Amino acid sequence: MTDAETTVGELSEGQVLRGILSRLPASTAPVGPGDDAAVLAVPDGRVVATTDTLVHGPDFRLAWSSAVDLGYKSAAVNLADVAAMGARPIALLVALAMPESTPLSFVRGLADGLAEACADLAPGCAVEGGDLAVSDTLTIAVTALGSLDGREPVRRSGARAGDAVHIIGELGVAGRGLDVLFTRFVDAAGAPILVTPEARASLGAEDAEGLDRQLRPHPPIADALRAADAGATAMMDVSDGLALDAERLADASGVTIAFDAGALGDDLARALGGGEDHGFLVTYPAGTDGPGRRVGTVVARGEVAVTVDGRPWTGRTGWDPYRDWDAGRG
Amino acid sequence: MTDAETTVGELSEGQVLRGILSRLPASTAPVGPGDDAAVLAVPDGRVVATTDTLVHGPDFRLAWSSAVDLGYKSAAVNLADVAAMGARPIALLVALAMPESTPLSFVRGLADGLAEACADLAPGCAVEGGDLAVSDTLTIAVTALGSLDGREPVRRSGARAGDAVHIIGELGVAGRGLDVLFTRFVDAAGAPILVTPEARASLGAEDAEGLDRQLRPHPPIADALRAADAGATAMMDVSDGLALDAERLADASGVTIAFDAGALGDDLARALGGGEDHGFLVTYPAGTDGPGRRVGTVVARGEVAVTVDGRPWTGRTGWDPYRDWDAGRG
Repeated sequence: MTDAETTVGELSEGQVLRGILSRLPASTAPVGPGDDAAVLAVPDGRVVATTDTLVHGPDFRLAWSSAVDLGYKSAAVNLADVAAMGARPIALLVALAMPESTPLSFVRGLADGLAEACADLAPGCAVEGGDLAVSDTLTIAVTALGSLDGREPVRRSGARAGDAVHIIGELGVAGRGLDVLFTRFVDAAGAPILVTPEARASLGAEDAEGLDRQLRPHPPIADALRAADAGATAMMDVSDGLALDAERLADASGVTIAFDAGALGDDLARALGGGEDHGFLVTYPAGTDGPGRRVGTVVARGEVAVTVDGRPWTGRTGWDPYRDWDAGRG
Repeated sequence: MTDAETTVGELSEGQVLRGILSRLPASTAPVGPGDDAAVLAVPDGRVVATTDTLVHGPDFRLAWSSAVDLGYKSAAVNLADVAAMGARPIALLVALAMPESTPLSFVRGLADGLAEACADLAPGCAVEGGDLAVSDTLTIAVTALGSLDGREPVRRSGARAGDAVHIIGELGVAGRGLDVLFTRFVDAAGAPILVTPEARASLGAEDAEGLDRQLRPHPPIADALRAADAGATAMMDVSDGLALDAERLADASGVTIAFDAGALGDDLARALGGGEDHGFLVTYPAGTDGPGRRVGTVVARGEVAVTVDGRPWTGRTGWDPYRDWDAGRG
């Protein structure tokens, strides 16, 4: 039997763990993996902490996402949440629950994806702890921790009337990729079919980019930290859809976000309703020279939390897992 | 329809969240729940972090554990890991993945259990963040964070020949409870049956205590911190079974743990092979007056990592989820 065919159900927890640890970036923490808990240095005495889970079914299909993709995405979405507070990601904890039939090669792919995401998006961040469990449903729960390095945290509640509204990163690209999956990579009955390298190569440039970003989001972490340094009054990760996330920021700040449609690109519906780009929605005091492109203005709270060219947005606003999952898996 | 009958699938993520937040202890953090990430104060510039998951099937049966029990246990096992490093638990992050058919009343019970565990075991610790997801398998992934408050972390690797070996807390009590469940609360086919208040009341005192501790472990957190202050050279949470956990500590320290059978109580098999008590295994320099009762001595590394009255232990050592789950759920 080759390693590729070995399943986690045939191994002890320690053996599975050894298959992972050697593939991860080297620990930089005072105490890394292997003890009851990790110890991490946060020199200014404050730690930023967030957790987000990917679940087989609502969050991914195994026909569409490789193990490396899933490791990458599970890290990226959490790194983005840390950076959205103005903090530098320093560590991930990964709780992995998987069926006994999961091949060890799949677990190694997940580890490779976690390592790639840390290297690409947050160099110096490492997986400093985790947990392995058996489950009927493949579940990847990641916690990310960050250091503010003396910055004040940038909250959702700090936007003030008159602030400029910027977007750092992409809008609607990952949403385009999701549409590609649900139109090009399903069979006649709507069941997901495998994303092969050949099928990917046959896609047009925009569809291929969308697919890549849907499977491996690239939050511009360094730009988010620069936004904090430039004086951002509020910031958040755009994960569920710009209209929905802007509403949350507007509600937390007690303001209205007034978008200029012309600044949101050619596909307004996808820019406002497509999720998972993991760019950043930022507000700055007027006149600030901060990262991102301007897409609107903060105004005094009106009847609605978000407007587009002065009118309420009546299109799709984003994704709610309790409302929107179609119960498919694959 | 009453609240008790409402399921999470009928609600938005925000509605489910509101059903939880009001039942949790008030946040004590600089930034608590509701933003992209929490911000926590760790005055000495180091944070202790650990994660552990409870999965329906391998880790619990819904016939045996109430929602409050599950919330309590998911907090307790993580609080114990933080305390085992010599750190004071300050925050939990809770990633909850659950079927759409889960009643809202169940989610509220989970929140009550989390709150009770914090109040009982680690006053001042609160749920400062989390994530809600839909899943076919109920999964509770908890991350616990702690502050060392100037202490040096107590690792597994610090035990030295000549140290005294102590146990803080119970041994084999939770294991007795597991045996009660698998013998008294199964039907003729071995399927779990409901633990009713009447059935609990009919148990003898020791069985009732075992059942209570199996469902709601009580790690003696404050004593673990006192052990660190007293000069513990090594410490760990006893979760998977004393023999297995002692082997891990011995291997990390390059020593052998020599237990005295007479100090381990009347039921040696359960003391060494029963898991989930979440007491602490501690080593102290000879002559230290630290918490716990003495159960053995650290000696130079011999042929085996653990001995009992000088001989290798050949009985059951503990629980490995990849080896030991019987695939039952219920």
